Amino acid sequence: MPDAVDLIRAKRDGGQLSPADIRWVIAAYTAGTVADEQMAALLMAIYFRGLTADELMAWTDAMISSGERLELASLTAPTVDKHSTGGVGDKVSLILAPLVASCGAAVPQLSGRGLGHTGGTLDKLESIPGWRASLSNAGIAAVLADIGCVICAAGDGLAPADRRLYALRDVTGTVESIPLIASSIMSKKIAEGTGSLVLDVKVGSGAFMPDVASARQLAQTMVDLGNAYGVKTSALLTRMDTPLGRAVGNAVEVEESVAALRGHGPADLMEVTLALAAEMLRLAGLSADPAAALTDGRALERYLAMIAAQGGDPEAPLPSAQHVEKVTAHSAGRLRVLDARAVGVAAWRLGAGRARKEDPVSASAGIICLAKPGDAVSPGQPVLELRTDDPGKFDRAREALAGAIVIGPDAPEPAALVLERIG
Amino acid sequence: MPDAVDLIRAKRDGGQLSPADIRWVIAAYTAGTVADEQMAALLMAIYFRGLTADELMAWTDAMISSGERLELASLTAPTVDKHSTGGVGDKVSLILAPLVASCGAAVPQLSGRGLGHTGGTLDKLESIPGWRASLSNAGIAAVLADIGCVICAAGDGLAPADRRLYALRDVTGTVESIPLIASSIMSKKIAEGTGSLVLDVKVGSGAFMPDVASARQLAQTMVDLGNAYGVKTSALLTRMDTPLGRAVGNAVEVEESVAALRGHGPADLMEVTLALAAEMLRLAGLSADPAAALTDGRALERYLAMIAAQGGDPEAPLPSAQHVEKVTAHSAGRLRVLDARAVGVAAWRLGAGRARKEDPVSASAGIICLAKPGDAVSPGQPVLELRTDDPGKFDRAREALAGAIVIGPDAPEPAALVLERIG
Repeated sequence: MPDAVDLIRAKRDGGQLSPADIRWVIAAYTAGTVADEQMAALLMAIYFRGLTADELMAWTDAMISSGERLELASLTAPTVDKHSTGGVGDKVSLILAPLVASCGAAVPQLSGRGLGHTGGTLDKLESIPGWRASLSNAGIAAVLADIGCVICAAGDGLAPADRRLYALRDVTGTVESIPLIASSIMSKKIAEGTGSLVLDVKVGSGAFMPDVASARQLAQTMVDLGNAYGVKTSALLTRMDTPLGRAVGNAVEVEESVAALRGHGPADLMEVTLALAAEMLRLAGLSADPAAALTDGRALERYLAMIAAQGGDPEAPLPSAQHVEKVTAHSAGRLRVLDARAVGVAAWRLGAGRARKEDPVSASAGIICLAKPGDAVSPGQPVLELRTDDPGKFDRAREALAGAIVIGPDAPEPAALVLERIG
Repeated sequence: MPDAVDLIRAKRDGGQLSPADIRWVIAAYTAGTVADEQMAALLMAIYFRGLTADELMAWTDAMISSGERLELASLTAPTVDKHSTGGVGDKVSLILAPLVASCGAAVPQLSGRGLGHTGGTLDKLESIPGWRASLSNAGIAAVLADIGCVICAAGDGLAPADRRLYALRDVTGTVESIPLIASSIMSKKIAEGTGSLVLDVKVGSGAFMPDVASARQLAQTMVDLGNAYGVKTSALLTRMDTPLGRAVGNAVEVEESVAALRGHGPADLMEVTLALAAEMLRLAGLSADPAAALTDGRALERYLAMIAAQGGDPEAPLPSAQHVEKVTAHSAGRLRVLDARAVGVAAWRLGAGRARKEDPVSASAGIICLAKPGDAVSPGQPVLELRTDDPGKFDRAREALAGAIVIGPDAPEPAALVLERIG
């Protein structure tokens, strides 16, 4: 039987772990015979030494094998999912799932909650009165067969070892490791049973990956893993330097998503959404035009049905914040920078996000970007609208925004949001 | 208040921790508010990133401050101690403490137990009927004042944070880090209150540090730490490629030590012992001749008094093993290699050592080296004598010795055991 200390030392010293070693350590950790402190040391050694392709396959495999796999093969439509590495104002899933479903695919979007400055899709949808995130496996399959899309919580049965490992990484400073991120994301997506998968890997100040090189490496690692498991996988690298769209929060992002499904989405949000939709349809082997599905109302129809299927009332008014303050421009010119991370942190401090996974979030808190980079502004003109039910939170939110707004004589050069496709 | 995850990430990313951060994390770990898994991740990050001189001072300081310090200033004789990083057959402390005491110094030798292939001084002395390792702080001071030397267990009150950290390092693959080794050793020695300290840093196959460069770095790190705390500190780098002397085990090493104190010590053991004695006397400002103290019986007299002061009967017969097997030479020539680590592991497997700190050790188990490198041997001539009370252990001990004995046409070049002095 392998020994935990031998494995830690081998990885620490640059050695390669065998598939049997990796299966053993994940199973023993799940069973409690390898202690948290031993796994923490191994994770930090992996942070420094990385995992080879073979090790990464074995690691991902061990996490998938720790739980159940969804069976979606009985669906007649091709299944395709999307995963985003997380951004600010990133409500793309809410629009994309019904949009791609209305083009003929089945979209099993098993999602998570937000942590830190990036929001979570489930938190956003929970601002809709009556909507429930949890479905049974049978419920997921039924909604998919009926409506063609579902956005719900990934059940406890999927990759439970990843759940424990993620919680451990969160408290031990070992989150930011490409192989650990890749295996965490892909083990859940592979266990979910989707036939194809498009990854939206965000790059920039508001993203997990600050530079293109590391984003590309993460994307390629995940694409290789997915394809090795028979999941047709590709990735788009997209910019996340400023919030996507104008709304950052929970209810406010649902409102903006519904507007987008009605054909009134902001240009940047629609650029990313339509690029991802096209990529999903390509992988699924479908040739429908997603832009047409937006203008003729089919996508909206799917959205309303999807919300209703999980108990939500799509016509009910959403919670709105009791207190509003404005952040104004201090000089005249063009808005050059509206920093995504700063706006994300400010929205989090207003109540839209959480610091620990047990914390509740406020449905109504958030930020509306009244101007976006390139817009002309004059002194005193509102740039951001801060919303919260707790006015005591305005001060710390404003602190987070120090330096976030840069105004200059000229607009920034226009730049495409989709940087490249991988896979 | 600092945050554990922020500290881990800062060290992971190559940043420097402030003295306040380090004080906080050691105190919070001791208090239990920083969890084992967080400290394990920090230790692995330190393994990769090291500690700066300032960080190392703060780390050592925090460990000293976690407990009490012995007060030895009331002694009239200058205090001087020796610490060895551990070797095979290294019974030097048993000879050195009474020898240096008989030359006018006071030697407060607070020691540990063996782990793995290296033996522990306390384990060796406990093979003497009646001898007790534990003394109160007042008892230590009294024996030192009366006899001039004491070898006993370091009490729980000295650097208790190091005790917890060492146990954690042992199970998380983070033992082999120069700053962590240095701070562990030096925090205990500084808390012990000695005025001077000589470090015997072993180099070679049987040592913790396999190469001269890393041994030199460890030695320099500890010398700098000691001197920064006002403890006059120097180090000798000494070879540990073959067992020191002929006996490896517990009772067998006590017997060889007594023979050495009677003037019949093997040449290699005496070379290292006398070099360390000269260095200790130099630091203590004493000019006595240690070789003379061996021949005139003063050193032996101190030894007998020291053993008796802790309840030991120095005249009582020591336990002897019930089963003995020989390992013989397979060809004729000169013994070129008798590998220290292999002999240490074999003695451990015969029962002389322990795998976990709770395990008991056998007083009688061990190995006698009947030939040493340079000796002429003929086929079938015994090279090692294996001793144990459990004959079921011979097989695994012989396995450990595979490749440990190399015979060639010529003797190896004679080499000095003391490689260099640092500090």
